[in-house]
Amino acid sequence: MNSKGLIVIVSGPSASGKGTVVSRALEKSDEARVELMLSVSMTTRGIGKNEVDGESYYFVDKDEFERNIADDNLVEYNSYAGEYYGTPRDKVEAWLENGCNVILEIDINGAKQVLEKYPDAVTVYILPPSFQELEYRLRSRGRDSEEKILYRLAKGREEIPEAHWYDYILVNEIIEESADDLLSIIKAEQHRRSRIEYKIDEVLETYGKD
Amino acid sequence: MNSKGLIVIVSGPSASGKGTVVSRALEKSDEARVELMLSVSMTTRGIGKNEVDGESYYFVDKDEFERNIADDNLVEYNSYAGEYYGTPRDKVEAWLENGCNVILEIDINGAKQVLEKYPDAVTVYILPPSFQELEYRLRSRGRDSEEKILYRLAKGREEIPEAHWYDYILVNEIIEESADDLLSIIKAEQHRRSRIEYKIDEVLETYGKD
Repeated sequence: MNSKGLIVIVSGPSASGKGTVVSRALEKSDEARVELMLSVSMTTRGIGKNEVDGESYYFVDKDEFERNIADDNLVEYNSYAGEYYGTPRDKVEAWLENGCNVILEIDINGAKQVLEKYPDAVTVYILPPSFQELEYRLRSRGRDSEEKILYRLAKGREEIPEAHWYDYILVNEIIEESADDLLSIIKAEQHRRSRIEYKIDEVLETYGKD
Repeated sequence: MNSKGLIVIVSGPSASGKGTVVSRALEKSDEARVELMLSVSMTTRGIGKNEVDGESYYFVDKDEFERNIADDNLVEYNSYAGEYYGTPRDKVEAWLENGCNVILEIDINGAKQVLEKYPDAVTVYILPPSFQELEYRLRSRGRDSEEKILYRLAKGREEIPEAHWYDYILVNEIIEESADDLLSIIKAEQHRRSRIEYKIDEVLETYGKD
């Protein structure tokens, strides 16, 4: 019997650093002996000039996205600003079957949808050390207007209490350490008794044999 | 608020390699950023010629051991072959208070006693890959008579089903990997939401402050 991979949901407020933590964990996964992939989302939004289809996103039109909804081929989906975003089920399942763990970097709403379909998914919430640090990070990336920054902070204030139903909490102070911690969580979860109980019986079956 | 250390119970049949895995995890704990100590047991058995009091064991006489029982200063204890063995509570608690995780390398009976007092202790069961490998390891250490080897194998057969109530299972094929896995389990457990939920509120309290 071979172990299936785990679904690992990573959520956190904008500028908590979850994207960077996940990238670093992916880079270090071989060294840590963890089979790890990042799920690529499907979206109807237009492709950016530096984007490659199938890397940052699978870019599809509205009809195709809606066909995927109808075919129940989305583990979760949402729409923002009139565009769809979702996680394709077929790709995720293929990786899991191969024993590869799959990270879904999704929001709380998406996480709830995934947990309905995969109740044993592992959930990790990335917290900033403080709102001052969150504001500092939002300002230093220089992407947002003042109004947008205040909106993102208020949204963080609204969302962070949802961390209370996640399995694990990482306070992201040092990216390198948070990436190690994320890999440790995945490794530990692979050894949870509920996931590998069959190994106890496999060992017992060898008793008294040559 | 500072995090208290965790009690980590490590059990497994004789020759499963648990002692070696624990030693290696202790050696690698700094590098892995895990504060880790091994609890030293108290015993009434005689001190061996290469043993140092307070290193392998605290050596005490029967009266002192029984005083410790009466004072409820033993997290768990047992007797084998007319001698007492137990885990002193005062030392363990002092480490936990300092934020240090403490490994107790104890048997199933001891583990049950500890869980009654510390229900949130983390339990890890070390399995050999097979009984053939267990027998090979018992024979190669050359310590036991044929009779004793058969007794240990039968005892393993009797005990291993108890792994079904441990939190984590490690199949010890490669010591280095098992030691890493043990450290990952401790690291992950430090980030379990139930243990560090207060951090969510600590972050929320910084909202709107300068």
